[in-house]
Amino acid sequence: MKTFLDESFLLDNEVSRKLWNIAKDLPIIDYHCHIPAKEIAENISFSNISRLWLGADHYKWRLMRCNGVDEYYITGEASDYEKFEKYAETLELAIGSPLYHWSHLELKRYFGYEGYLSKKTAREVWERCNTKLKNIKARDLISESKVKLLCTTDDPIDDLCYHMEIKNDKSFITQVLPTFRPDRALNIEKSDFSTYIEQLGQVAHIEIKNLEELKKALISRLDFFVKNGCKVTDHSLDHIFCTLVDEGEVENIFIKALKSEAIREEEEKAYKTYLMLFLSREYKKRNLVMQLHYGVQRNNATRMFESLGADAGYDAMHNETPGKSLSRFLNELDKTNELPKSILYSLNPIDDDMIDSIIGCFQNSEARSKIQHGSAWWFNDNKIGMIKQLSSFGNLGCLGNFIGMLTDSRSFVSYTRHEYFRRILANLIGTWVENGEYPYDIDALTRIIKGISYNNAVEYFDFDLKKV
Amino acid sequence: MKTFLDESFLLDNEVSRKLWNIAKDLPIIDYHCHIPAKEIAENISFSNISRLWLGADHYKWRLMRCNGVDEYYITGEASDYEKFEKYAETLELAIGSPLYHWSHLELKRYFGYEGYLSKKTAREVWERCNTKLKNIKARDLISESKVKLLCTTDDPIDDLCYHMEIKNDKSFITQVLPTFRPDRALNIEKSDFSTYIEQLGQVAHIEIKNLEELKKALISRLDFFVKNGCKVTDHSLDHIFCTLVDEGEVENIFIKALKSEAIREEEEKAYKTYLMLFLSREYKKRNLVMQLHYGVQRNNATRMFESLGADAGYDAMHNETPGKSLSRFLNELDKTNELPKSILYSLNPIDDDMIDSIIGCFQNSEARSKIQHGSAWWFNDNKIGMIKQLSSFGNLGCLGNFIGMLTDSRSFVSYTRHEYFRRILANLIGTWVENGEYPYDIDALTRIIKGISYNNAVEYFDFDLKKV
Amino acid sequence: MKTFLDESFLLDNEVSRKLWNIAKDLPIIDYHCHIPAKEIAENISFSNISRLWLGADHYKWRLMRCNGVDEYYITGEASDYEKFEKYAETLELAIGSPLYHWSHLELKRYFGYEGYLSKKTAREVWERCNTKLKNIKARDLISESKVKLLCTTDDPIDDLCYHMEIKNDKSFITQVLPTFRPDRALNIEKSDFSTYIEQLGQVAHIEIKNLEELKKALISRLDFFVKNGCKVTDHSLDHIFCTLVDEGEVENIFIKALKSEAIREEEEKAYKTYLMLFLSREYKKRNLVMQLHYGVQRNNATRMFESLGADAGYDAMHNETPGKSLSRFLNELDKTNELPKSILYSLNPIDDDMIDSIIGCFQNSEARSKIQHGSAWWFNDNKIGMIKQLSSFGNLGCLGNFIGMLTDSRSFVSYTRHEYFRRILANLIGTWVENGEYPYDIDALTRIIKGISYNNAVEYFDFDLKKV
Repeated sequence: MKTFLDESFLLDNEVSRKLWNIAKDLPIIDYHCHIPAKEIAENISFSNISRLWLGADHYKWRLMRCNGVDEYYITGEASDYEKFEKYAETLELAIGSPLYHWSHLELKRYFGYEGYLSKKTAREVWERCNTKLKNIKARDLISESKVKLLCTTDDPIDDLCYHMEIKNDKSFITQVLPTFRPDRALNIEKSDFSTYIEQLGQVAHIEIKNLEELKKALISRLDFFVKNGCKVTDHSLDHIFCTLVDEGEVENIFIKALKSEAIREEEEKAYKTYLMLFLSREYKKRNLVMQLHYGVQRNNATRMFESLGADAGYDAMHNETPGKSLSRFLNELDKTNELPKSILYSLNPIDDDMIDSIIGCFQNSEARSKIQHGSAWWFNDNKIGMIKQLSSFGNLGCLGNFIGMLTDSRSFVSYTRHEYFRRILANLIGTWVENGEYPYDIDALTRIIKGISYNNAVEYFDFDLKKV
Repeated sequence: MKTFLDESFLLDNEVSRKLWNIAKDLPIIDYHCHIPAKEIAENISFSNISRLWLGADHYKWRLMRCNGVDEYYITGEASDYEKFEKYAETLELAIGSPLYHWSHLELKRYFGYEGYLSKKTAREVWERCNTKLKNIKARDLISESKVKLLCTTDDPIDDLCYHMEIKNDKSFITQVLPTFRPDRALNIEKSDFSTYIEQLGQVAHIEIKNLEELKKALISRLDFFVKNGCKVTDHSLDHIFCTLVDEGEVENIFIKALKSEAIREEEEKAYKTYLMLFLSREYKKRNLVMQLHYGVQRNNATRMFESLGADAGYDAMHNETPGKSLSRFLNELDKTNELPKSILYSLNPIDDDMIDSIIGCFQNSEARSKIQHGSAWWFNDNKIGMIKQLSSFGNLGCLGNFIGMLTDSRSFVSYTRHEYFRRILANLIGTWVENGEYPYDIDALTRIIKGISYNNAVEYFDFDLKKV
Repeated sequence: MKTFLDESFLLDNEVSRKLWNIAKDLPIIDYHCHIPAKEIAENISFSNISRLWLGADHYKWRLMRCNGVDEYYITGEASDYEKFEKYAETLELAIGSPLYHWSHLELKRYFGYEGYLSKKTAREVWERCNTKLKNIKARDLISESKVKLLCTTDDPIDDLCYHMEIKNDKSFITQVLPTFRPDRALNIEKSDFSTYIEQLGQVAHIEIKNLEELKKALISRLDFFVKNGCKVTDHSLDHIFCTLVDEGEVENIFIKALKSEAIREEEEKAYKTYLMLFLSREYKKRNLVMQLHYGVQRNNATRMFESLGADAGYDAMHNETPGKSLSRFLNELDKTNELPKSILYSLNPIDDDMIDSIIGCFQNSEARSKIQHGSAWWFNDNKIGMIKQLSSFGNLGCLGNFIGMLTDSRSFVSYTRHEYFRRILANLIGTWVENGEYPYDIDALTRIIKGISYNNAVEYFDFDLKKV
């Protein structure tokens, strides 16, 4: 029996351990996260572990609700320690959950805690962490984690002042790049759409009264982002549409929406398709990478949405994304050679093999694995999900070109998820080698492990970093 | 190499075996089965193993058809021994089938047979079992299996006389509770709907001419069931709808159906949605647990349906349940805090992760894991299906709160499926511990194993039983 | 650590190795492949390994595109050696790909190469293979692989002259049978439909002006195929429909299509349903096996389709096949007992369990596992896909009756895929035995292994071969 979370955690054999030793100390590129640039610029600190852990982490909130914990101890008025204790109690029962592993990896790597969290040890852990947190700030956590570069997620109307501030501060060497995420310009069905378009116009110094002006404004913001180091864009799409209509019709839909008139579902699809195609082409021109996140149904519990708002742990998968729409959308761009480098993430893992089969139709010599199947996302960000995504990419693509892991997190201690991923990767590949399914060629294996852990991302995104 | 079905069956390591030793002798709660209460009340016996095994088991029938066995030896006129022999022959080829394991577990535990069934051993097994069956009756099989409580499945018009008889017979200590399953009141599209509603009215002493009276009649029966110990309800839905229309419209649909007029598909959905919401709210008021079974297409082979009727082994999965309907249905109830404790089962395992992600949106402090993802059901009730369901619940929920196994069976010797489940559970968790993925904390592990095997069900259903 | 691709490749334990020893030297039936009969008749040879490997293999093309290789080195003007070298380079990164295994199995078995292919070894492998290819022709490769029988895939208008030629040549003993694949007669939506129907009429000596004449022509060709040894039919359906309309309506649709008028989607479905039902009934009368391949979206990249045509590596899975259509189609035939023996293949593996549950409704005594779930197909033809298909068939069907592997290939060296399959099969079953999940009964296991590897296909297809 192995000791819990010891050095050989998730590593089943000799080769896996060797490969982990190669991956272990490599720096980190976190090309998709949700940390606010402001918090890095301000180099915030945390008065206690609850603030760091439970302040905004809807994964942990969901787990606590699943354990029957009252909302009072989750997002309510309970004291920080009470909340922490409830989480500790919950964790004991969360066997088989990635949160069990993530939480303990964080306690071990950032706080040197070698035990395990439970109701019994809650006080001890609380004190140890809080003592340590007195002397650590956000940037320390990033630097200590060897993060060379991270991409935040930003609205086109963001003035990127914090990104500039971080860049100008030579004492902090991690690159912090903005990601262009124009969801609000796409979400024509939302009640605040026209307000948003007005804001966008103001920021871009264009009064937006028609499609042409919308596009100008977006381009102006996109160029501003690029000037500030943006290499990646992101879309949270829920569905991927390919509903093609005349531009004139899209113009009418847009103008209706500006007047806050109701938009029908087919109109929404047509507008979104049109704007996505437009933006994709602009990304291609600028050699930007496009991320497409889809498959989500959001805010499923109205009562809780009204009380807590969005992103509070009430989202789920759906099963309604036709593979044909996805293929048609990519083809519409590829037809004219305007498809940018793209990363696809579906929240529902039943799409995995289909995605890998579709993206295989759009690969070419513009990049090694120009279209990528993104790392196991959100509800799939666990051992089973990662093995499934890696195996599917391996079976149907060319795994050695995979750009690897990201945190997708709002937390400064989520970088251990890269460790988690690298261990799983090392074990998967190491086990293949142990089983005689790939030769024990340490040079080839090193290239693959370093590639997936770090180098492929440098090359794929064209980051200003040296390969290792 | 392990001996077939020996003490370490399905257990790969030391910790797994330790956990199995904890689970092994725990009593059984079978909160969902299809044994007729009449057979328990009458304490039936079986003249031979074919009567016990092959009389009503469509799993075995399907397997035999799959082996090219003629219907004559399945549901036809062949002698009991001939049928048994055909099953024995078939089993030899059924490597990888749960029936291979179930059948042999039953032979070993109930009949002390240590070999394996094949054409060659058929006669020997036949005689051994039949000898034993001379001295065993239905209740002996239940008691011997340490079943503390079982829930049958009953129509609202059932007078529960057998349940009362069993309860009054103090010589039999297993609790036998009715389950309220009003499928026929929901199935407005069926030709016998109006006849059924008339029967329901008679039993409830209400002449049902409109919705209000229907609801009154159902409530009257529900209260009668609750008075007779009912803690659980069940719905076989095929699809989960959330088609909301005015009550007046539903009234019209219902009245049309009472007149045996044809009902359109949209009308069916509207009626079913309405009645399901109504019933769910009533369950909530009475602290009853609601089971939702869906994802089935029934009676696929018309020719065989006409010859053998329903439940003869001609059902299958479909792949048409939108996750959005499921989420909307749950939300419609949760909005007003009227969602009862619920257990969801989809027949198609591709829904597993989606279900776990959706139910995570409706958990709260009313119960530990108020909404449960039911144990791997029917076609999934095998090693792979169970591991998948447990892993998905573990990844996305809080596995320590899972209420565990049920037999879903018509047979008195299916309780070994609890053994099967517990071994798989012990092995899954034990393997995590062996691999250092959870600490070897025997107190925590014991709590989890006992919880999933027995205690969680006691607490969740509020059964009148002591925890162990 | 095992040596790469050694004798125990994919075999994890003693029993697996024993079972592999049983399977190892069994002859091969390749009941579905895409080798042109012409190439066998002409006994073609290959001037170099690129011609053999890269001439028509879209699996390899896709992999190279995935590695960012320019089309020039794939289907373009580069020299054969340059292409080979690019493939060698790509393979290094293709860890986890079935192509890694297939390629090396082929190098080892046909060319005696014991190393592994990489940029470094490309020249050495190139020379070794080319030397060997000087003395090997197509038929040698088939004979050396112990292929007793293979079924090509042929259009009804084919005159089967090459099949006759092969049959008459007594120096070549492998049976080469035609497969009746009338896709072009079904594809009423295609622009060349009316031209094709004209060709079909010419070959059948019938001027086709209506449905009746179409059916006559098809039957005439079917009988011609049967006279020439055809035992199997095949349909590439993309979708499975069951849209039933009056014959008169189908007649109108067909006549419209003959006039090259546009056909609506609903009309396409009606026509295809009608013709599929007609053909199925004719297959049943002749005791032919029907293969249904579905779940594909083809030619996803228009730009590449225009440049390279079909079957160039631009196909993918879709996720739009309703299980209900599949069930209704089978039932429509089964109702009147006109359902032929059938093999179902879906390209999307999420359909696996559903397929196994549906076919279980249509089994009867006409054959052992009359309806089969075909071996893991195309994008699923890898270790994970095979284990999934075998496990699903095992859980829901009767695995001992499975008819096993086919190559589905255009290549003369793909027979090692049978080795790949048999190793995976031996390991799956061997591991069950090692784990005590099936008894170590070597007679029963031998029967199962020989059955799935060879004998079941002999019996199922009624081939003129002796069992082994």
